[in-house]
Amino acid sequence: MPNSFGKMFTITTWGESHGAGVGVVVDGCPPLLPITAEEIQAELDRRRPGQSDIVTPRNEADAVEILSGVFEGKTTGTPIAMLVRNADQRPGAYDEMREKFRPSHADFTYQAKYGVRDHRGGGRSSARETIGRVAAGAIAKKLLATKGVEIRAFVTRVQDVAIPETVLSEMPFPSPGQIEASAVRCPHTATAEAMIERIKEVRAAGDSVGGVIRCRVRGIPAGLGEPVFDRLEADLAKAMLSLPASKGFEIGSGFAGTLLKGSEHNDAWISQDGKPRTATNRSGGVQGGISNGEEIFFNVAFKPTATIMLPQKTVDAHGAQTELTGRGRHDACVLPRAVPIVESMAALVLVDHWMRQNAQRGTF
Amino acid sequence: MPNSFGKMFTITTWGESHGAGVGVVVDGCPPLLPITAEEIQAELDRRRPGQSDIVTPRNEADAVEILSGVFEGKTTGTPIAMLVRNADQRPGAYDEMREKFRPSHADFTYQAKYGVRDHRGGGRSSARETIGRVAAGAIAKKLLATKGVEIRAFVTRVQDVAIPETVLSEMPFPSPGQIEASAVRCPHTATAEAMIERIKEVRAAGDSVGGVIRCRVRGIPAGLGEPVFDRLEADLAKAMLSLPASKGFEIGSGFAGTLLKGSEHNDAWISQDGKPRTATNRSGGVQGGISNGEEIFFNVAFKPTATIMLPQKTVDAHGAQTELTGRGRHDACVLPRAVPIVESMAALVLVDHWMRQNAQRGTF
Amino acid sequence: MPNSFGKMFTITTWGESHGAGVGVVVDGCPPLLPITAEEIQAELDRRRPGQSDIVTPRNEADAVEILSGVFEGKTTGTPIAMLVRNADQRPGAYDEMREKFRPSHADFTYQAKYGVRDHRGGGRSSARETIGRVAAGAIAKKLLATKGVEIRAFVTRVQDVAIPETVLSEMPFPSPGQIEASAVRCPHTATAEAMIERIKEVRAAGDSVGGVIRCRVRGIPAGLGEPVFDRLEADLAKAMLSLPASKGFEIGSGFAGTLLKGSEHNDAWISQDGKPRTATNRSGGVQGGISNGEEIFFNVAFKPTATIMLPQKTVDAHGAQTELTGRGRHDACVLPRAVPIVESMAALVLVDHWMRQNAQRGTF
Amino acid sequence: MPNSFGKMFTITTWGESHGAGVGVVVDGCPPLLPITAEEIQAELDRRRPGQSDIVTPRNEADAVEILSGVFEGKTTGTPIAMLVRNADQRPGAYDEMREKFRPSHADFTYQAKYGVRDHRGGGRSSARETIGRVAAGAIAKKLLATKGVEIRAFVTRVQDVAIPETVLSEMPFPSPGQIEASAVRCPHTATAEAMIERIKEVRAAGDSVGGVIRCRVRGIPAGLGEPVFDRLEADLAKAMLSLPASKGFEIGSGFAGTLLKGSEHNDAWISQDGKPRTATNRSGGVQGGISNGEEIFFNVAFKPTATIMLPQKTVDAHGAQTELTGRGRHDACVLPRAVPIVESMAALVLVDHWMRQNAQRGTF
Repeated sequence: MPNSFGKMFTITTWGESHGAGVGVVVDGCPPLLPITAEEIQAELDRRRPGQSDIVTPRNEADAVEILSGVFEGKTTGTPIAMLVRNADQRPGAYDEMREKFRPSHADFTYQAKYGVRDHRGGGRSSARETIGRVAAGAIAKKLLATKGVEIRAFVTRVQDVAIPETVLSEMPFPSPGQIEASAVRCPHTATAEAMIERIKEVRAAGDSVGGVIRCRVRGIPAGLGEPVFDRLEADLAKAMLSLPASKGFEIGSGFAGTLLKGSEHNDAWISQDGKPRTATNRSGGVQGGISNGEEIFFNVAFKPTATIMLPQKTVDAHGAQTELTGRGRHDACVLPRAVPIVESMAALVLVDHWMRQNAQRGTF
Repeated sequence: MPNSFGKMFTITTWGESHGAGVGVVVDGCPPLLPITAEEIQAELDRRRPGQSDIVTPRNEADAVEILSGVFEGKTTGTPIAMLVRNADQRPGAYDEMREKFRPSHADFTYQAKYGVRDHRGGGRSSARETIGRVAAGAIAKKLLATKGVEIRAFVTRVQDVAIPETVLSEMPFPSPGQIEASAVRCPHTATAEAMIERIKEVRAAGDSVGGVIRCRVRGIPAGLGEPVFDRLEADLAKAMLSLPASKGFEIGSGFAGTLLKGSEHNDAWISQDGKPRTATNRSGGVQGGISNGEEIFFNVAFKPTATIMLPQKTVDAHGAQTELTGRGRHDACVLPRAVPIVESMAALVLVDHWMRQNAQRGTF
Repeated sequence: MPNSFGKMFTITTWGESHGAGVGVVVDGCPPLLPITAEEIQAELDRRRPGQSDIVTPRNEADAVEILSGVFEGKTTGTPIAMLVRNADQRPGAYDEMREKFRPSHADFTYQAKYGVRDHRGGGRSSARETIGRVAAGAIAKKLLATKGVEIRAFVTRVQDVAIPETVLSEMPFPSPGQIEASAVRCPHTATAEAMIERIKEVRAAGDSVGGVIRCRVRGIPAGLGEPVFDRLEADLAKAMLSLPASKGFEIGSGFAGTLLKGSEHNDAWISQDGKPRTATNRSGGVQGGISNGEEIFFNVAFKPTATIMLPQKTVDAHGAQTELTGRGRHDACVLPRAVPIVESMAALVLVDHWMRQNAQRGTF
Repeated sequence: MPNSFGKMFTITTWGESHGAGVGVVVDGCPPLLPITAEEIQAELDRRRPGQSDIVTPRNEADAVEILSGVFEGKTTGTPIAMLVRNADQRPGAYDEMREKFRPSHADFTYQAKYGVRDHRGGGRSSARETIGRVAAGAIAKKLLATKGVEIRAFVTRVQDVAIPETVLSEMPFPSPGQIEASAVRCPHTATAEAMIERIKEVRAAGDSVGGVIRCRVRGIPAGLGEPVFDRLEADLAKAMLSLPASKGFEIGSGFAGTLLKGSEHNDAWISQDGKPRTATNRSGGVQGGISNGEEIFFNVAFKPTATIMLPQKTVDAHGAQTELTGRGRHDACVLPRAVPIVESMAALVLVDHWMRQNAQRGTF
């Protein structure tokens, strides 16, 4: 089931960029959670195109319809199907893509894998697929919120425009308002402004940029995650590397932590109100694959958007050398819209592991 | 099934550091592959303790017994169970761990998760669990070898001792001999020597170091991997973050690639012998989650070994503050022994996706 | 994923009887299969209400929309989402069910399981859920047809009105026309007429009846199915017992075969054109969980419809004794409409195992 | 994972009849369950050969070793690996089977599926595979016992020697002692004696017989099982049809219930101590796939043992017609030894669904 994610709280996404629509089925959701289409729409609005002047102007309301699984305002424990119709379709705009493989896109690989592809707007490889993730993630986030868990992702770097390391490492847990304050979803105002400027410059040049998103989670109790293969950090890594344009993941001290010695890196245990806490948090809230009750945090690297408005060398379906210039409406930087997607995927992983812990440590 | 990995070529590992033994069941292996215990043992010997003067002197032969699934020298398509008995047990050496949580280990989190733990040598959280992965990986690597696929992992950095970036980026595909030439499994001789020196220094000081392993794979045809959640890079990321002590993963251009613009980062398509090839390989051999036929390469970050021979602050099972000094026989740097484990996990992911591609594009 | 079925060709159904609609996502379908909404609709028409004068008069067109996964008339290998809107809703008709548990229905058990239920028309427990199975099954049947596989289910018994055993055991493989010739989907004309008469009598009395469906499959090559847990007959049994109102499953000689001795029961091997064939087929086409190339056949028992138009004793949500009389439009016998559902589930199991065999015996 | 069963409480069996041994890995077992090798051995002794004068005289102690997952007498939540070495091997006895396909065995189908097979004693298709199931089932049964659940299987019919229907339908829940009182595991003494006589007669004639096992379960609360595909009865059916020699499954009223009208078949609800109970139990304890708190009961049909000591027509590996006479030590009737296997599989299904219910209705 390559289009499903999660073992107990399982989502299955479907849909292409220029087909009838995109959607998701959420299977395994606990019953009796109050949820409305408006709450889900609010999260979708954070990822929708056209929301600000630094994202793609493709104008899609991305209005969600809940087709099943919610009755009289509450989940029933049965599958929750959600549908977003595609609206702003310009299929003619993609005729060139039928024959030419876009560089660093999935055109060639889909063709190689399936022997066929819906070339319009990238088809299934379009980032519109993430609509289903965000709709499902809205439910997962609400479930976690009922347990006191908060998840905040934000942009820490756009190309080389970054929140200063000292600021980042000392930053208090940001509020939703601080993140949403800027169109780029960076809670450090000065950096946010510089990021926006960079994105506008690059876009004006027909080019694109990438960067880094950090995600922080607090309120997760100790004991979630499985040792061995389904470690919490392993499932988070998979979740993040499953996102379009992501190229890297690191948790806690990550790559930088490899420069320290063990004596510098280890998180000493201290007793706080009779409970073990770590003096530092280079572990990033997980040890041996299992949450230790500290804040969970990780970084995700996103490459520059593959679609650029500059001519590029490529090959056509017949193997002949040719050239392609991006057209249409694209994000010069995907990170602002990727923030709610990262949060959604994190929420999905965490709910799933919470349910797995319930299973093994429940009434037995 | 938290102790299983893979959908079609599925492995299930079991065992604790100081129990009767450790092992693995491989389910789904194609029949008629010639395989011997000796071939599996050869891979286990690359990860076993005591193999050189820079790894733990715990003296375990780690001799493997094939219990099922191989008949007259060939796999039969039925489960292959393999067993390695634990030999060099010193349970008394771990009495202190029954009551004290080791910093940056999994002692506390296992206790929180399960309400019980086998404290001897870390129990299930011991790196001895990876014996099963390497035994299974030996079979996966042999399967891939029959298809012309080669997998080579090697150490590129120990703490700050690194293969120079220009050397690394231009390095030809290394041979097994080049990697095994040094005890640290770094194919760049000068760097290898410096790494070994660093490890010895640090170990003499009772401390530890981490670093980075790169894995390179060639011979994978275009079309392996699934779009959406089970992307090849997502499954590789999960595989790598499931390894003890790993804290980060990046594929292709990774974190560094986020500093480039799209025009600099995109891999132009060129026609080579009528076949599309990429002029550069910042994608790392995967696009949209699917292999594009180029070399696949990725990096894995390993933190410094948590066990150090220096006194550390910790908390005991009753919540009281105390101190702990590591004892016993440990690796001051896990990377040399992690090399075959990284290769094994990569092989498992690749075989699994190959079989999944068979399923969907087979005789139907 | 309780609402998913199949490992490689995976379907996920969703929807309630009186919600917005019902549907299915098919994940893993091989690409390049020509398929149209009309072909799927043709199968749905075989299970839809109102199709004849012996089934429920609920008037639903059950018109299917393909939302994704099909491009220019062919499957693309990506998820195929299908939607059927609910039309003929009379929610007011179900007010009594909010408070009273219908005998031998799922009202009480859903309430016990989830603490909540959509009571309208049975909600998720409605047989409308099977629309998704039939839509997915239409694709699976088409895939199998391309391989020369034919699947025919038909009604062999309604209450005690049965095709004579000697006729049944000698019956040639029936054509679709022979099965569709009668509204009851029994290819033996005299029996079909008696069945229809019985159903009309029972319905006139406000009562209901059950019976037995046989399914026959020819064209399956030897080698499909897995030993041990995922035996072909085990997966078929699960598929059939997952159908609403089914109470029993038997393959080959089934329960009656237990009256024979081994010497009477065993299927001798004979050589036919140099190929091993069985002289008899008490095995029902499977041996050790794996197809042997002979015809696969099995029976499924369906209980009488739980909804009857007679007063029944029951209990309300407050634990008080009360009475309930069925209302609304129901089938006095589910078997005629269950025929395409049985075929669909059989097709799903067979395609899945074919793909699994591809995986293990493919290009490796 | 064709050799795994269960979603949360997952078992993976491995091993061949004449390889090094057979075994099982149990993954997902809740921690802190007290369990000993002796308790597991007691269940294995109920299925082992040589236990009475009506079963195969193959003399195997089937001594189990727990290799992992149990520490200081309690489960730790990590995988429990168990091993039973094969002892009484007579490989030479099977030379004929290398070339000849035994009728109604899995020889031909394994060869067709894998292109190779371990022919000795049936290899993987041997009923020795069920040792792993019984070892795992012993743990599942103990878990259920801690919740007050009792599982009793027993033989109700051998060929046509059956417990009278009136006795069977009125029989109180049998005690273990009543079942174990006879070698045939039928709690009705007169019938048991006739069954034993029949088995001895048939065996003396070199022939074999089958029959029916009933399984009864009490103490399961309402709410276990999943609607749609993973219905409790669907998973039970799969479990039972996954057993060697089983050909049929029916729950509650089963095939006989199809002869009743709805008004006769429905289980009226009555209020007992303010709790809904059914006046009758034709549902067999499940409605809509979910337990309703009543006793769960089902029947399993087992065909006569395929191995008989009489000459049979068969075909050899080269397609030539030949003859084969069974040799070696076999059960003339598998049912007495199948009783603990049926109980084990039922226990595995029930524990799994209990854990799934925990997951969805746990602390969320």
